[in-house]
Amino acid sequence: MTERVYLDWNATAPLRPEARRALVDALAVAGNPSSVHAEGRAARRLVEAAREQVAALVAAPPADVFFTSGGTEANMLALSPAIETAGEKRPREVLFISAIEHSSVRAGGRFRRKVIREVPVDAEGRVDLAALAAAVSDAERPLVSLMLANNETGVVQPVVQAAAIVHAAGGLLHVDAVQAAGRIPCAIAVLGADLLTLSAHKIGGPKGIGALVRLSENIHLADPLISGGGQERGMRAGTENVAGIAGFGAAAASASLKREEEAARMLALRNLLEDGLRAVAPRTVIFGAGAERLPNTTLFSLEGMKAETAVIAFDLEGVALSSGAACSSGKVQPSHVLAAMGVSPPFQRGALRVSLGWETTEADVERLLGAWRKVSTALSKGSKEQRGMAA
Amino acid sequence: MTERVYLDWNATAPLRPEARRALVDALAVAGNPSSVHAEGRAARRLVEAAREQVAALVAAPPADVFFTSGGTEANMLALSPAIETAGEKRPREVLFISAIEHSSVRAGGRFRRKVIREVPVDAEGRVDLAALAAAVSDAERPLVSLMLANNETGVVQPVVQAAAIVHAAGGLLHVDAVQAAGRIPCAIAVLGADLLTLSAHKIGGPKGIGALVRLSENIHLADPLISGGGQERGMRAGTENVAGIAGFGAAAASASLKREEEAARMLALRNLLEDGLRAVAPRTVIFGAGAERLPNTTLFSLEGMKAETAVIAFDLEGVALSSGAACSSGKVQPSHVLAAMGVSPPFQRGALRVSLGWETTEADVERLLGAWRKVSTALSKGSKEQRGMAA
Repeated sequence: MTERVYLDWNATAPLRPEARRALVDALAVAGNPSSVHAEGRAARRLVEAAREQVAALVAAPPADVFFTSGGTEANMLALSPAIETAGEKRPREVLFISAIEHSSVRAGGRFRRKVIREVPVDAEGRVDLAALAAAVSDAERPLVSLMLANNETGVVQPVVQAAAIVHAAGGLLHVDAVQAAGRIPCAIAVLGADLLTLSAHKIGGPKGIGALVRLSENIHLADPLISGGGQERGMRAGTENVAGIAGFGAAAASASLKREEEAARMLALRNLLEDGLRAVAPRTVIFGAGAERLPNTTLFSLEGMKAETAVIAFDLEGVALSSGAACSSGKVQPSHVLAAMGVSPPFQRGALRVSLGWETTEADVERLLGAWRKVSTALSKGSKEQRGMAA
Repeated sequence: MTERVYLDWNATAPLRPEARRALVDALAVAGNPSSVHAEGRAARRLVEAAREQVAALVAAPPADVFFTSGGTEANMLALSPAIETAGEKRPREVLFISAIEHSSVRAGGRFRRKVIREVPVDAEGRVDLAALAAAVSDAERPLVSLMLANNETGVVQPVVQAAAIVHAAGGLLHVDAVQAAGRIPCAIAVLGADLLTLSAHKIGGPKGIGALVRLSENIHLADPLISGGGQERGMRAGTENVAGIAGFGAAAASASLKREEEAARMLALRNLLEDGLRAVAPRTVIFGAGAERLPNTTLFSLEGMKAETAVIAFDLEGVALSSGAACSSGKVQPSHVLAAMGVSPPFQRGALRVSLGWETTEADVERLLGAWRKVSTALSKGSKEQRGMAA
């Protein structure tokens, strides 16, 4: 059997060897980090060492990193009317999100659905900064959530400019950096973010662990999502996922160290991929191609293609890719991201996402292009037959 | 260096070899369970196989098991005014809990603090059923949370009788079975529980994974704690902790298989331990000794002892035990469990918990008793000196 080619790194990344080692080593440490005996203290040391590694990935103080069970929980924790800043404790009344956020941000955290406002994006999938400025101008102490890079298109959002707008309006900015981390710089202060979400499994750490990072202790998570024990300085109760945290730390350290080199390599492969897609089917559309994008992500379509059928065809050819976000219950739904970009339904339905990672090789891209030749030829035959029947 | 003796299994248990293998094997499966390609489907199979193993531990249908990040999150998810039963959707107004619940239940989930009512326990640490009946008699559709076994004393609660009382009042019963699972039978229908909480790391699975189990689909978790993607049939969003879930499943299967044998062995060791504690210091008090207890737990005290000092003394002798629950921020606080049992402060302050597991040997118990000889002798000398000084 030919080896499979995994090109769905935005859904989840294989575990980095460093993360695997750290996780497996941590499994041997039996203690509960809250216990005072030697076993407990050993577990505590693993957690705190990993906190430093994760903090370094986003250039934040370790004490401002709060571990959660993943990106979704971190987003839920961040999006609360009760996020306080020094000296200002009144609840925030409105949440602004871009129209292309992840489902966990679209769910709005602890805000009621009717106080969530969407800010539109342009045809390239970038948030409309003028619309953002207009939206927050009347709001009192708005909370704004804007992803750093979109999971479907890879389009990088103008977060620095958005932060200036949000702060000028007296608001706070939450940045979901789940897809951006490890691929582009994510220093929290440089971005202008007040809160920032990370997920371990997108950067080669284990599934089931993530973090919410705050810019400084001036930002207070006054409404913990999960209460009980005093873990994570009272912000997140429950015995720590010690091995998961250790794996997250190692993945963060590796991602910090190798980011530039990996990004350059992925970008070269992505260019090869996109040239190849268009060479095979010249009418291939690549979404967000006019915007700055992550070096690893290509979302493309061809009129008349059905993504769900195409994903299965690629899978049978041994190539794993996706029809969009994987965070759903397996249901095929039209992409809210492409709808917000104004993409017409025939192109929306055919959108396929290829996302690369540090293990991706030129041979993998060639395998994908070989499969694309078959899929697009079958499609072209199918549509000719359809036209023939209609004639 | 002498090998250390770990006797704090109620804080967290070492990973079972079966759980370690399943977890490590699952780390090699790269897919996201929500992805439709082969890698995604392989991850999905791991999750669903583990769901069957966890369901079997409590004799529930697999479709009624919802994975969470641990026992604390499961308790938060369960304790919501919006738990619906078929045909009845009005919010529940009052939450009743026993006075000895874990901090994650004491936090009250999504109930406001002022609608949480505590039901007292007797001197042995058993919930007062007459008080429970009186409390719920005026309540409309009460939600009651009662642990199956207490984490500090090991005292088993009269859950079956409590369930009858709660159901007669038209209420629902949530049972926190975190400490009981793997030690005593936990079949959800036999207990009479409507909702039941499990934690993997207490039964030899990994930290960072747990489950909320419901009796049947008639009970609807209408207010998910973590929203976004459609995972766990819409009840708990976020990419599944695949490896953690696989480890949990294997631990549950092992615990189901070996429970009776392990419980019998632990009980014999516990009897040896308790006889030994009293032989060394005849005035040793064992809490809840008149009640049915878990086979592995002993909470004991000696007047004048300071638990925090004693834990460190035992630790220096190579023995890990605890001064009570480990779920706190490391702060030493008086035990609400002993206070509820009416234990006087001088005994409360000295309470030490020894909790055994399947790896515990007779030699471990002897090591503990050797250390107890030193600790109790030092204490006795100290108090004689104090008396001498006072004279």
